[in-house]
Amino acid sequence: MGRLKKGSRCSICKAKGEKDKAVVFLPHHRLALCKKHFVEWFEKRVEKTIKEFRMFSKKDKILVAVSGGKDSLALWNALTNLGYEADGFYIDLGIPEYSEDSKNLAISFSEKIRRPLHIVSLKEEIAPIPQIDKATSRPACSACGTVKRYYMNRYAKQLGYNIIATGHNLDDEAAVLFGNTLHWDIDYLKRQYPVLKEENGFIRKVKPLCKITEKESALYAFFNNIEYIEYECPFSEGASSIEYKELLSQLEEKHPGTKLQFYTNFLKKMYPILRQHEEKEKKEIKLCKICGEPSFTDVCSVCKLKEKVKTEV
Amino acid sequence: MGRLKKGSRCSICKAKGEKDKAVVFLPHHRLALCKKHFVEWFEKRVEKTIKEFRMFSKKDKILVAVSGGKDSLALWNALTNLGYEADGFYIDLGIPEYSEDSKNLAISFSEKIRRPLHIVSLKEEIAPIPQIDKATSRPACSACGTVKRYYMNRYAKQLGYNIIATGHNLDDEAAVLFGNTLHWDIDYLKRQYPVLKEENGFIRKVKPLCKITEKESALYAFFNNIEYIEYECPFSEGASSIEYKELLSQLEEKHPGTKLQFYTNFLKKMYPILRQHEEKEKKEIKLCKICGEPSFTDVCSVCKLKEKVKTEV
Repeated sequence: MGRLKKGSRCSICKAKGEKDKAVVFLPHHRLALCKKHFVEWFEKRVEKTIKEFRMFSKKDKILVAVSGGKDSLALWNALTNLGYEADGFYIDLGIPEYSEDSKNLAISFSEKIRRPLHIVSLKEEIAPIPQIDKATSRPACSACGTVKRYYMNRYAKQLGYNIIATGHNLDDEAAVLFGNTLHWDIDYLKRQYPVLKEENGFIRKVKPLCKITEKESALYAFFNNIEYIEYECPFSEGASSIEYKELLSQLEEKHPGTKLQFYTNFLKKMYPILRQHEEKEKKEIKLCKICGEPSFTDVCSVCKLKEKVKTEV
Repeated sequence: MGRLKKGSRCSICKAKGEKDKAVVFLPHHRLALCKKHFVEWFEKRVEKTIKEFRMFSKKDKILVAVSGGKDSLALWNALTNLGYEADGFYIDLGIPEYSEDSKNLAISFSEKIRRPLHIVSLKEEIAPIPQIDKATSRPACSACGTVKRYYMNRYAKQLGYNIIATGHNLDDEAAVLFGNTLHWDIDYLKRQYPVLKEENGFIRKVKPLCKITEKESALYAFFNNIEYIEYECPFSEGASSIEYKELLSQLEEKHPGTKLQFYTNFLKKMYPILRQHEEKEKKEIKLCKICGEPSFTDVCSVCKLKEKVKTEV
């Protein structure tokens, strides 16, 4: 957790926290940092994560999945400052108010850092999320995830990028891991890694913020004067991931470092065992009969979704 | 959770819950049961668990690890009612008040069901727990677990039993699983199964209450007029397992069945993967140079403990 503390001193420059000169305390790293050194620390930590998991190098063309929220904009900002070639990709989900607000923030940010932002409209591709939600019995977040993954991958290839970077932070990853563990969902656990390699028509996908907490990311955005959308998507209400985040935060409060250890120990100790198992029984991938994108079934889930929305109208 | 509900009806005999005639509601099984049918249900569930995991048969000689608490006495009672040959084994840990109280309750119960109870005194074997606790830097529960496992195994062999049954319930197992998962402690996860096979000088160990919740076990003891020790061991205070139990209970309250699913899905889906991995890299077992009992190191942990207690005196 990042707490703003007046009076304590930066572990690096020893500057004292005062009015307008906050010193941030990160209990799980046993660090207190002034604004300048927090920003430095954050970017170094992102860089280290990129190298640890061999995500990409300065030669790669990176497409950042931008939602307009703190994480994706913080990621885009950090990658740019670190000297990577990173452009933005925004999917306009057509959610009243939420999508307009977040799109405007994404556009302003892209102008501020002078990097191109590609925009795709779900309304033009299939239908806006509220309409898709009505046409399917699955929760909105599930359909939304499916279409985001699909169009990210499809457009990244078309636009000539070889890496997709998403802003998933430690809280997101730990909560998803917690849910998958609670149900021992082996197929999902097997994919819970911050790098999904390029193969069978899928572009490499990476999560450079996987060791950054939600609060650290919000603080980085704040210190860099990044304007981001502060309210949650209206469709996400009641998502189980929010419940798991709260539970993990309870544990974190008592034992700082729990979230990070839970996640990193999984990657170090459990993931290799699951991978060994994976290699024995790999599912074959096909190409969708309709759109030609990679799919585990004859017709991919987005083309099925399109069909459903059509019959609904 | 088991809730006593007045006014609702037993799912089997339709008897209505009234004063002195409680009907118990088990949300995660969607069952309401009167006293008679709850006791029947409980024993059937224990029998089913014994068969599901092939724990033992009517030909086996079973030694029940009796602490004087609700779980071990409920287990002993159920096994006896189900027609198994089960005797008791009590280790007097020498904890003031707690050990005397629990020993007396264990003795009374053995007289009530007319089955022998073997008693071993830790004071005579090494030293009482408070003295051991002072001699070691590990938490008391850790040393206590070590000596219990050791003497259970040693005496069971000497006394001619071929099965050790312990009263670990679903709440215990789920909490331990939760802790081991939070740290991704693979070596412990690999041993998290309700049957540990006999091998290398270890007797088969089983947990027939692994699918019975703490509350179900307390209720079974209550309905059978079993007197058990109701307060916790004074050394167990602050144990992390208590924290994990509380967290899981929070989830259970919102989503009945979470604990059971977490535990049984682990056994069904994750445990087989870990076992495959286990077989590849099995640790060799030796015999302790001092006492001749099985051990992973040259001198077993109990003999090391003895040495420590001696030098302390």
